[in-house]
Amino acid sequence: MRISELVAESGIPLPTVKYYLREGLLHPGVAAGSRRASYDRSHLHRLRVIKALTETAALPLTKVKVILELIDHPDPDLFRALGTAVGALPPYVEPVDDHPRAREVLGRLGQVYDPHYPAVAQLEQALSAAEQAGLAISADRIDLYGAALRQVAAYDVARMPEADGASASIEYAVLGTALYEPVLLALWRLAHQHVAAEQLGANAVPPAR
Amino acid sequence: MRISELVAESGIPLPTVKYYLREGLLHPGVAAGSRRASYDRSHLHRLRVIKALTETAALPLTKVKVILELIDHPDPDLFRALGTAVGALPPYVEPVDDHPRAREVLGRLGQVYDPHYPAVAQLEQALSAAEQAGLAISADRIDLYGAALRQVAAYDVARMPEADGASASIEYAVLGTALYEPVLLALWRLAHQHVAAEQLGANAVPPAR
Repeated sequence: MRISELVAESGIPLPTVKYYLREGLLHPGVAAGSRRASYDRSHLHRLRVIKALTETAALPLTKVKVILELIDHPDPDLFRALGTAVGALPPYVEPVDDHPRAREVLGRLGQVYDPHYPAVAQLEQALSAAEQAGLAISADRIDLYGAALRQVAAYDVARMPEADGASASIEYAVLGTALYEPVLLALWRLAHQHVAAEQLGANAVPPAR
Repeated sequence: MRISELVAESGIPLPTVKYYLREGLLHPGVAAGSRRASYDRSHLHRLRVIKALTETAALPLTKVKVILELIDHPDPDLFRALGTAVGALPPYVEPVDDHPRAREVLGRLGQVYDPHYPAVAQLEQALSAAEQAGLAISADRIDLYGAALRQVAAYDVARMPEADGASASIEYAVLGTALYEPVLLALWRLAHQHVAAEQLGANAVPPAR
């Protein structure tokens, strides 16, 4: 397809597409005559990935480049590659050498504790904020949240397209995390609404407006 | 306690505490002499609530005021009060009259669908972004996420301090949502790491650094 079709299909403006080409985020098309290039599904696919990262996940372009680089040239150790790629997503929390609250929680859940894994610093900060607000998370709550999220994660990881190679797996992990986190949060709030409606009874019928 | 102790205990600077007093976000102390006022645990508690909302949840002060107003003068319909209060938390998505993707998902899950409930617009936007990126969420995934989050929500709502009155319940719902969402997201990413480590085997041992 021509670049104008790429623009129309992707919904990304021409100057932005040209910028991605110049910056190497988008691979060049195949030369078709002296002043034209031809693009295919792979270009459209790449533009969708970039759009998801810049718009939905609101990533700065420097982080998008890091992720695309990891997708294009995956670390042969897939586990490490997945961790690095997901770690390029926000929130960006400075990792330190030890995260005592997160260490305790992960030990309790019987999970891996690697203090340099970005989500560990993220967990430590979240636990600390709850504690400071006087709403420290109880062990019971951790057990229940942890078990529910392992169910979700087992489903997610089982559907990782490993057979399609490391690049496809990394792309799935990054986009899945970026795109499904907002779904997860919205579903959580709506589950609260649903359960509260059941518990609070008749008042709970949504008012017609 | 004196205002200086309030500052030391809360970790909020004096000019900010004075600003909250002027703006009515913090209730006045009891006069103790002509130029002094005395503060108690209720002031410290209120400052913790404000801090959680402004710092952890990163709310603008106008939204903090809305939430404090709902806590101080709760709607007699607790279900509606909870919805309004949690709806004052980000993300702020413009609600419209119908959200077809969210309606379908909630119908599938057998949950309440009120198009004006803020989390519905949030869900619609999240589903739409996933769809545009070519990662539309399957019905299977919705069923599994929905069931897991209802378990979490049932736990949360069961621990709402209803016996302590509407104000306490609203405060619990708002702070619980704001403070535990980051915990939930971090636990999800760490559950991915844990499950991937199990699935990918030996490579998965965190490297000693």
